[in-house]
Amino acid sequence: DEPPNPTLFTEMDTLQRDGDDMEWKESARWIKFEEKVEEGGERWSKPHVSTLSLHSLFELRTCLQTGTVLLDLDGYSLPQIIDDVIEKQIEDGLLKPELREKLSYVLLRKHRHQTKKPIHRSLADIGKSVSSNTGEPHRSMNDISDTPSTDQLKNKFIKKIPKDAEASNVLVGEVEFLEKPFVAFVRLLQATMLGGVTEVPVPTRFLFILLGPAGKAKSYNEIGRAIATLMVDDLFSDVAYKARDREDLIAGIDEFLDEVIVLPPGEWDPNIRIEPPKKVPSAEKRKSVFSLNEVGQMNGAAGGAGAGGGGGGSDDGEMFCGGLYLDIKRKLPWFPSDFYEGFHIQSISAILFIYLGCITNAITFGGLLGDATDNYQGVMESFLGTAMAGSMFCLFAGQPLIILSSTGPILIFEKLLFDFSKGNGIDYMEFRLWIGLHSALQCLILVATDASFIIKYITRFTEEGFSTLISFIFIYDAIKKMIGAFKYYPINSDFKPDYFTPGPPGQEPGSNALNLTALDWTQLSKKECLKYGGSLVGKSCKFVPDLALMSFILFFGTYSMTLTLKKFKFSRYFPTKVRAFIADFSNVFSILLFCGVDACFGLDTPKLHIPSIIKPTRVDRGWFVFPFGKNPWWVYLASALPALLVTILIFMDQQITAVIVNRKEHKLRKAAGYHLDLFWVGILMAVCSFMGLPWYVAATVISIAHIDSLKMETETSAPGEQPQFLGVREQRVTGIIVFVLTGISVFLAPILKYIPMPVLYGVFLYMGVASLNGIQFWDRCKLFLMPAKHQPDYVFLRHVPLRRIHLFTLVQIVCLAVLWILKSTVAAIIFPVMILALILVRRLLDFIFSQHDLAWIDNIIPEKEKKKEDDKKKKKKKGNKGDSSSDEEVGTGITLHLKISCPSSPAFNYSRNPICAVPQVKIEMESDYEDSDTEKAPRDMGSETTL
Amino acid sequence: DEPPNPTLFTEMDTLQRDGDDMEWKESARWIKFEEKVEEGGERWSKPHVSTLSLHSLFELRTCLQTGTVLLDLDGYSLPQIIDDVIEKQIEDGLLKPELREKLSYVLLRKHRHQTKKPIHRSLADIGKSVSSNTGEPHRSMNDISDTPSTDQLKNKFIKKIPKDAEASNVLVGEVEFLEKPFVAFVRLLQATMLGGVTEVPVPTRFLFILLGPAGKAKSYNEIGRAIATLMVDDLFSDVAYKARDREDLIAGIDEFLDEVIVLPPGEWDPNIRIEPPKKVPSAEKRKSVFSLNEVGQMNGAAGGAGAGGGGGGSDDGEMFCGGLYLDIKRKLPWFPSDFYEGFHIQSISAILFIYLGCITNAITFGGLLGDATDNYQGVMESFLGTAMAGSMFCLFAGQPLIILSSTGPILIFEKLLFDFSKGNGIDYMEFRLWIGLHSALQCLILVATDASFIIKYITRFTEEGFSTLISFIFIYDAIKKMIGAFKYYPINSDFKPDYFTPGPPGQEPGSNALNLTALDWTQLSKKECLKYGGSLVGKSCKFVPDLALMSFILFFGTYSMTLTLKKFKFSRYFPTKVRAFIADFSNVFSILLFCGVDACFGLDTPKLHIPSIIKPTRVDRGWFVFPFGKNPWWVYLASALPALLVTILIFMDQQITAVIVNRKEHKLRKAAGYHLDLFWVGILMAVCSFMGLPWYVAATVISIAHIDSLKMETETSAPGEQPQFLGVREQRVTGIIVFVLTGISVFLAPILKYIPMPVLYGVFLYMGVASLNGIQFWDRCKLFLMPAKHQPDYVFLRHVPLRRIHLFTLVQIVCLAVLWILKSTVAAIIFPVMILALILVRRLLDFIFSQHDLAWIDNIIPEKEKKKEDDKKKKKKKGNKGDSSSDEEVGTGITLHLKISCPSSPAFNYSRNPICAVPQVKIEMESDYEDSDTEKAPRDMGSETTL
Repeated sequence: DEPPNPTLFTEMDTLQRDGDDMEWKESARWIKFEEKVEEGGERWSKPHVSTLSLHSLFELRTCLQTGTVLLDLDGYSLPQIIDDVIEKQIEDGLLKPELREKLSYVLLRKHRHQTKKPIHRSLADIGKSVSSNTGEPHRSMNDISDTPSTDQLKNKFIKKIPKDAEASNVLVGEVEFLEKPFVAFVRLLQATMLGGVTEVPVPTRFLFILLGPAGKAKSYNEIGRAIATLMVDDLFSDVAYKARDREDLIAGIDEFLDEVIVLPPGEWDPNIRIEPPKKVPSAEKRKSVFSLNEVGQMNGAAGGAGAGGGGGGSDDGEMFCGGLYLDIKRKLPWFPSDFYEGFHIQSISAILFIYLGCITNAITFGGLLGDATDNYQGVMESFLGTAMAGSMFCLFAGQPLIILSSTGPILIFEKLLFDFSKGNGIDYMEFRLWIGLHSALQCLILVATDASFIIKYITRFTEEGFSTLISFIFIYDAIKKMIGAFKYYPINSDFKPDYFTPGPPGQEPGSNALNLTALDWTQLSKKECLKYGGSLVGKSCKFVPDLALMSFILFFGTYSMTLTLKKFKFSRYFPTKVRAFIADFSNVFSILLFCGVDACFGLDTPKLHIPSIIKPTRVDRGWFVFPFGKNPWWVYLASALPALLVTILIFMDQQITAVIVNRKEHKLRKAAGYHLDLFWVGILMAVCSFMGLPWYVAATVISIAHIDSLKMETETSAPGEQPQFLGVREQRVTGIIVFVLTGISVFLAPILKYIPMPVLYGVFLYMGVASLNGIQFWDRCKLFLMPAKHQPDYVFLRHVPLRRIHLFTLVQIVCLAVLWILKSTVAAIIFPVMILALILVRRLLDFIFSQHDLAWIDNIIPEKEKKKEDDKKKKKKKGNKGDSSSDEEVGTGITLHLKISCPSSPAFNYSRNPICAVPQVKIEMESDYEDSDTEKAPRDMGSETTL
Repeated sequence: DEPPNPTLFTEMDTLQRDGDDMEWKESARWIKFEEKVEEGGERWSKPHVSTLSLHSLFELRTCLQTGTVLLDLDGYSLPQIIDDVIEKQIEDGLLKPELREKLSYVLLRKHRHQTKKPIHRSLADIGKSVSSNTGEPHRSMNDISDTPSTDQLKNKFIKKIPKDAEASNVLVGEVEFLEKPFVAFVRLLQATMLGGVTEVPVPTRFLFILLGPAGKAKSYNEIGRAIATLMVDDLFSDVAYKARDREDLIAGIDEFLDEVIVLPPGEWDPNIRIEPPKKVPSAEKRKSVFSLNEVGQMNGAAGGAGAGGGGGGSDDGEMFCGGLYLDIKRKLPWFPSDFYEGFHIQSISAILFIYLGCITNAITFGGLLGDATDNYQGVMESFLGTAMAGSMFCLFAGQPLIILSSTGPILIFEKLLFDFSKGNGIDYMEFRLWIGLHSALQCLILVATDASFIIKYITRFTEEGFSTLISFIFIYDAIKKMIGAFKYYPINSDFKPDYFTPGPPGQEPGSNALNLTALDWTQLSKKECLKYGGSLVGKSCKFVPDLALMSFILFFGTYSMTLTLKKFKFSRYFPTKVRAFIADFSNVFSILLFCGVDACFGLDTPKLHIPSIIKPTRVDRGWFVFPFGKNPWWVYLASALPALLVTILIFMDQQITAVIVNRKEHKLRKAAGYHLDLFWVGILMAVCSFMGLPWYVAATVISIAHIDSLKMETETSAPGEQPQFLGVREQRVTGIIVFVLTGISVFLAPILKYIPMPVLYGVFLYMGVASLNGIQFWDRCKLFLMPAKHQPDYVFLRHVPLRRIHLFTLVQIVCLAVLWILKSTVAAIIFPVMILALILVRRLLDFIFSQHDLAWIDNIIPEKEKKKEDDKKKKKKKGNKGDSSSDEEVGTGITLHLKISCPSSPAFNYSRNPICAVPQVKIEMESDYEDSDTEKAPRDMGSETTL
């Protein structure tokens, strides 16, 4: 386990003749991919995959066989190194001694690098004559100097090169005085700064020189590109660093050739530059037969030390409150970082976005709750409750990325409860308090008994069904509210000022009769007219014009602008950072823009109105509900029954959202805390019940939006390398600030009143639509509309027949339709139970779909029994396969990968990742040339859960 | 020049063991690209480039060296062929005789093909048990039969295979009884139908069999893929058809290997399937060193027999009316096809689209002309004139794709003329008639003297400047009209029904004083109120609500919906034909939709109103203007002077549009006819002047829209091949019908009145934006906003420094700005002269930019003098280059391409393509591995025009 070799930066310079003078001109460079100098364009090409000709690789091989190879040369300056190389060639009889001077002269010519030229030079160029069509490029320092030149130091490209990097320089060119090629491959003992040879101040370790007789410049160029490409290859560079002799290098080339990918000339145009792929095979994967890396990959989030972790594990599972204890033990060390990691520019955007979502939600649910409970719980209670519950949860819960909110089912429950209380003479607030207390207790019991183990049955099927449903509700609500605006401010197509006629009482409208009443009705305003007993006649009387259409424009504008700006991240305009900024703040920009539009027109669109004084919505209630005295004693006990329903509702809603938030795709580092989450939901429920505030539970869509706005990506390093999704900025700061802001919104009312409601509905619509993205169910739905040959290359399509996929999707659609109908009727109260039913439906699918298919479509963790059966089957199959592939010969392109599943660890508990009690060894055939499985294989089916 | 070999369809079947039984299962197929059977998915993969391993190619080479090669075997059935092959192997001592039976048994197993399974089977699958996870695929007939099976005949894939195609079958597999591989390559003397071996009823010509000892299935598979890829390679298949012996085949492989493109393993993941490229190198290009094809490519539209042709050529140039004569001579043979080629479904969409554009234009200009000339020319005249001039032009002109219309400069001219006449007591209509007659005469003189030669100075610079300007005017007008709607129907933010108060005359509004007038003002409608001398007071009186916003929604909706539907062509949903239909009719769909939206709301939006009776707009004018009697005699002569201005205007407008329409990118087959076009414009001008109708000239934007809606593409043949742009449906039918429809619009008024004007403005906006697409100037403008590294890989960026490109673009922007300012002021009348100035500016650029740069950015045809200088320079340069590349050795990847420019031909006259008087031979270095010049090289700079 020696330290890895430094990264190699390769620069290729070609010999150019400028009149009588000669110089070395940089023509390409490599960190990982090739960047070429566009001669005419005087610019760097885009980084691309180096497509080589087989011919040049073979020629290179010959060059290394016949040329001079100097390994571990003790060089301190270019002239000395070149002297040594030439001396060696003369010694070996490869070079005539009389050419020494000439060669040395050529090899010590100046190096000219392709450095960016400022645009403003273009104006100065105008004066130049037509004949000089190539701008005079800058000449770098003479390469005799040992210290880096200012040009080298000024070159910003150094930022792209890792700090410990070393350079390899490739020099190719044709000269007239040589009769056969002069080839040298030099490795220096110590990486040495060779003055102006390299464009950046990076010490040189390797030097490849190819000078040949005139006439074959193209061929030399291709050979130069070949060695440069080899030098940046992870495996060959390793060989180059460790080679003891020429043969090692040749063997390295042969190894490279054996791995090479070949495109048939008739199916590919060699002039097409190939964009760097999203993922390249890692050196480790290529290197080792016994690939440890594979294991890490197989286990998904394994790198994140139990990101999917949580409660009752194998060792503490039996203990009372074991899950909760483990959750706390696991989350505590992260607590400080949960704060300092929150300070990042991205958090501001996330806070603004989520804050607006939260207050819209608070106002909507507050209004509806007010209607449902005769204002016992109104907008004020909704705001206070959201602020209090949300900030407490974000401060102490297991997964602070979850955002709490009121939800639809709870609203319906409250409505039914209020009606029941009213009808039966029971005091609503006290009754509700007791239900809340019972439910809180039940939640705590669920925590203590580690009941969250149920989430292992929440597979993709359930998860997607639930989150799609919630997204649909968001979209549906946003559109419904928009249509509401059309109903509230109807468009009067018959509007004519003519028809608008205030008339005295009892008068026939439109009749032209004389009127001798003392009042001049025409001079009255609408209000006065009504006051004096007049009536407004005609269709136009109650008409508020323009508002409906304006609301629509604001609504749709906000939505589509947010969508457009989000996509702007992938456009070509502006530097990457500017684009990222615009995309991150897309919602803020569009909200501001459409608030501006609204302000410009000055129409009386419905605005966001927030109560500005803190006091209960009803005057006959305070901030504390006394538990005794208003209801008979048996009500206190009987309330345990409705509480059970609330508990199921809270539990399911909370845990499914938590599962979605803790998805392994999110690459969370800090583990989940299902038990701790539920614990706090229970505690907050009790507090809210005492204070007469609404109950809170995890809100799926807003939580997803929260995560989406906190995603991190690598900043690209080598040109052409794709940024990788790193994970989510896991912290408590954004959540806490959002809810604190919600609390003090009461004081922000004068500012917030400029925000039109349609703009917020637009934000709602965007949240709903955005949370549908990346749901596999949704992708599968789209497949119905695509002819098979146009379907994207999803990995499950390669492994499961389309009709099985369609069937699976259809079952999901039917389930969703049933749930939708349920939630639209009074049966909504049994909604949580139906989600349990969803899990049941999923279990039934086991009888229709094979485990193989489910492994690809759904993400399953089969039980013990199934596992054993599967193992048997697999062994049988493997046996068959094994017969035909016992040959381990690498040359055929077949590699044996031993995949070891990870041993169980406490942190690995009820995650959705493959977990196992005992290490298992699986032998899998894999070929480097097998063109399937671009994506990860599905979860290890043979693993066992220890829950 | 023997006939080309048939296309080869290659199918690869692998030997599968199903229990004790064995069968051949189709695993991949090739027409040009590879399609693989996705095992689990039971479907065909997307066609992709076959990425091979170098290893498998070498193994294949060894196989062919050691195995049996039977060329021109006289086989009539599979059993007989297999017998022959086995016999030969035994003869050669490659096979033990006792294995004969076993081998024969294996090779005659059934073949199972991957045929589509209907989706509705999925429901039947539900009943199946979990264990059987692969649906039972259909078994094809036993391969002993000679007649094609029903499955073969039912296979729709046959449509993708050319009719004369032959099959090559690759069979690979592992068997236990063999100790060393059994390899055979068979070419049949006659292509023979071998029963169920091939999935389609295509006769087999080649058979490759590889059976080997168990354990190396993957390796055999790769070898099978390698030979299959070779068989579909144009060059190797040629070798395979003509090979005399084993050595020829080996040489073919070596040739293939030498051309092969290599991807380094560290920069590319072999599991990524590479999408087929847009263009692959043609077999001819790969085959021949002396590449004739190159010449065709260099000369752009040369294939289209003088698509850019036109007037006064070398031979007839001196003749009077020579250009016109040649135009007629060239266009006459196409005349019949101009009609029967118009009958195509696509024409309907084009007609509807262009018709709507035309009538909107006619109405707009008619209204404006009516304002400008006190209704001497109004909407009625505009309609009749458009119909008459347009249909005559489309019927007889040289380029019937051009759409005539009134244009802005003419409108301004008419306005000034009318004001001048009125101010000086000259009869406008008579004066105008004489100007028209003079101008028509001048046009005819220009035709007779072949003055259209000027178009050779219209380079991309001028062309783009002009068409961008016209596009901007379209966009500007559309938006201006939209904003006009906001002004005409202002949004009254203070609207309150309260404020709307009809009051008696002289009464203070809002005062509550008693009114003893006999009339009851409240009962009056607005009209009555005004009639009795009352006034409407308050802000809301003249307010028409909702119209402005509704108009905006209709306008923007139509525009963005058209844009979206156009893009739908490239989505994945629905079969290609449905998508093409939706995209072709996108404008019709969006117009219909938004007319429907408008009708739903029933608001009184401004509608398209067309006069319904044919009579002059003014009663004091008839349909014929008498030339004498109203003005003094000298006016008849003096009108020649303003006529000159009109002539320049007409000429420039007409010819630039014609140049744009005849762009070589449009691949027009039937030549242009600049002289004939101008001839008809002149004639029509005279007719219009006599009838008192507006003057007509080619309308740039609508003509481009016309062309865009008539574009043709190949219907894809081999899976993975990209559709190619074939050209434009050149015919006279669409144009004629459009103008006939315009004429009878007078009778369609009851239908057309449902179309809201904002919808038509939306269509205008779309036309303007769409015509900006594909303009290089516009692409270059966008470069200003892109960081260099994100810029697209435009070919000119590779060859011209960015600052030079920016400078060129800036000059264009300044010119455009000057033109815009000019056309917005009264100086608009010298607008045509300014376009001449544009040509001058372009000439000046020759002193700032090198010819090399201009060749890439602008499309230039240098003059004689320049050409000679250039030639000298080039020779000097070539000489230099030649020194270093006199070596013609092909092995270095350097190929010499001799490029012969075409000899001059009458049809090649003043086209914008490179043309030459004498054949010129240029020697150009080209390497197959040089990764530049993906696009065509710029025009041949060394060519000479014969104009």
